Amino acid sequence: MRRIAVVTSNPHKVEEVASFFAGVAEVEHVRMEIPEYRDDDVRVIAREKARYAYSQLGQALIVDDTAFSIDALKGFPGPYAAYVQDRIGNDGILKLMEGVTDRRAHFETAIAYADGEGEVHIFSGVVEGEVTGEARGEEGFGYDPIFAVGRRTFAEIPLGEKSKMSHRARALASFRAWLEDQ
Amino acid sequence: MRRIAVVTSNPHKVEEVASFFAGVAEVEHVRMEIPEYRDDDVRVIAREKARYAYSQLGQALIVDDTAFSIDALKGFPGPYAAYVQDRIGNDGILKLMEGVTDRRAHFETAIAYADGEGEVHIFSGVVEGEVTGEARGEEGFGYDPIFAVGRRTFAEIPLGEKSKMSHRARALASFRAWLEDQ
Repeated sequence: MRRIAVVTSNPHKVEEVASFFAGVAEVEHVRMEIPEYRDDDVRVIAREKARYAYSQLGQALIVDDTAFSIDALKGFPGPYAAYVQDRIGNDGILKLMEGVTDRRAHFETAIAYADGEGEVHIFSGVVEGEVTGEARGEEGFGYDPIFAVGRRTFAEIPLGEKSKMSHRARALASFRAWLEDQ
Repeated sequence: MRRIAVVTSNPHKVEEVASFFAGVAEVEHVRMEIPEYRDDDVRVIAREKARYAYSQLGQALIVDDTAFSIDALKGFPGPYAAYVQDRIGNDGILKLMEGVTDRRAHFETAIAYADGEGEVHIFSGVVEGEVTGEARGEEGFGYDPIFAVGRRTFAEIPLGEKSKMSHRARALASFRAWLEDQ
């Protein structure tokens, strides 16, 4: 079976990928410090991270990166979602969105797969939604309480259900479908 | 005389450095795409950029990076100052600071000098000030209209005066003093 290294500092991600690829590929965890490239496009960031990781490992691997983008804020916080969440939090985002009628926002996860020869393939998953007027729900983390898909925020959707329809799940599904075709 | 390459995509920076180093070093402009490292510390970012540029050029060079940090926002926007300015602007910052009594903020420029052997030396310049309640003044750019040192915002200080006391000028002065000692 194909072997793929999941390069991340987060072991939970590895479990998720492993269960996703049961029967398709064998997944192992590689912990590596990857320089964080700055770019507005999360697919470019993931690609650069995969190139770097491949230059160190020389084997098939995946890395990923996620952005949270609010239309009315020209895509802010975008790929800096984690930094911005830590600094100004959901309260800061809600303050910035006070009086703003266009509430559209989306999550995007990009997965970059470097194959055994170092060629990089990108798979992206997007979920469209809206920024709520206030935080709601207890599940998940980060922007989940202020990001609504339909009537529920991500933090009001049970984890098992969310992990089937999330941006990350969509990117992984797209990658797996491609891999099964190879 | 010593020759130093100023690695940047901004020719105005080169003129500023050249006039600063008249008689001390000869300055030339090198345009290069440097991957943008993500880090909370602008000195680390400048160091990594200098290492990368030296690996490409193999000659003495400087690069720089600037952060704008607001205490009450845990240092936000920090090294992402340019991105955040472009996306939410000074209006966004003022909105985040509504009702916040601690207005302290600072600018920091870090200059990284890679010498002829590739050893990297870091020089930093900081200006402490406060976020105003509203934008004032026409000079400068970026956060200048909402950043006050004493009674005037950076945008209310004539450019000639500001360029003597700015964070960037302080970093350059510290670098020049060190260079003259070598």
